[in-house]
Amino acid sequence: MPLIQVDLDADVYETLGDRISAEIHQAQIDALGTPPDDLFQVFRPRAAGELKYDAGYNGLARTSLLLIQITMVHMFPVATKRALFVGIADRLVALGIKRDDIHIAVTENGFEDWFAGK
Amino acid sequence: MPLIQVDLDADVYETLGDRISAEIHQAQIDALGTPPDDLFQVFRPRAAGELKYDAGYNGLARTSLLLIQITMVHMFPVATKRALFVGIADRLVALGIKRDDIHIAVTENGFEDWFAGK
Amino acid sequence: MPLIQVDLDADVYETLGDRISAEIHQAQIDALGTPPDDLFQVFRPRAAGELKYDAGYNGLARTSLLLIQITMVHMFPVATKRALFVGIADRLVALGIKRDDIHIAVTENGFEDWFAGK
Repeated sequence: MPLIQVDLDADVYETLGDRISAEIHQAQIDALGTPPDDLFQVFRPRAAGELKYDAGYNGLARTSLLLIQITMVHMFPVATKRALFVGIADRLVALGIKRDDIHIAVTENGFEDWFAGK
Repeated sequence: MPLIQVDLDADVYETLGDRISAEIHQAQIDALGTPPDDLFQVFRPRAAGELKYDAGYNGLARTSLLLIQITMVHMFPVATKRALFVGIADRLVALGIKRDDIHIAVTENGFEDWFAGK
Repeated sequence: MPLIQVDLDADVYETLGDRISAEIHQAQIDALGTPPDDLFQVFRPRAAGELKYDAGYNGLARTSLLLIQITMVHMFPVATKRALFVGIADRLVALGIKRDDIHIAVTENGFEDWFAGK
């Protein structure tokens, strides 16, 4: 039951929100092996100025910030997490998102930390 | 000092936001034994389409998503967490929220990870 | 790559948002020793009533809530975290924010839990 939170520029959300959602979800299925119906995402479109970043950090050339937070159970090897990140990035780049703009942070918890409707 | 974050449909927030807040808070008091004035919640009403979910995951019939994130100190037994989840769900159901729509995720930290005004 | 999330009163954001951003960032640099270009913040202005708090908890006199969530790698001693909290609070107080209104929660993860554009 990974929970995906996306804060992103409102204009990007307006034009690409549903496709960003679908691509992140497919990357999750591919990398983590979660079932297709295991979908929990919240999108939070942000007005100009609400996302603060430095264009050049990490040797890149950001023009925006597409911030993805993933909460998931501590059970995946480092290589699997990396495959998830690269899968998400590759898929979003295919939509026209700049790779430099993508920022992902994972926070882990345990199986006992979830309630999914029951 | 649990911190409660709620992302929910804007219409549900408009009609029930204050009561949802009060019921989550009472469930916290009942299950965790926190003092009544230990209240830290943020509500984030979401427009249509910003909450992405699958109606059927986990054998349920969702019609919306009421997403509750709880950040709290790692100190509670699993049974206490479960009592918290069930307490929240029971109380929200009594308000007319569908149990299937309720989704809760806990993230834990330590005592040293908080600043509460001093 | 600390990630800073700030939920705050929309009026406070309107008048002080950019300065709050800059002061939190300088406190991060001072306390954690992160490079100046390591800036990742999201501001989420909140309408009246969306931030729920008790005015008196912890023996204080809140009139609002300025909620700061920090996600960062588990690597800093407790004293460093405390210096970060005090640094943020001192700097925001200098802007006219009430110290009582400041609430900070840290959640930690690992180096492998980040993707920063590559």
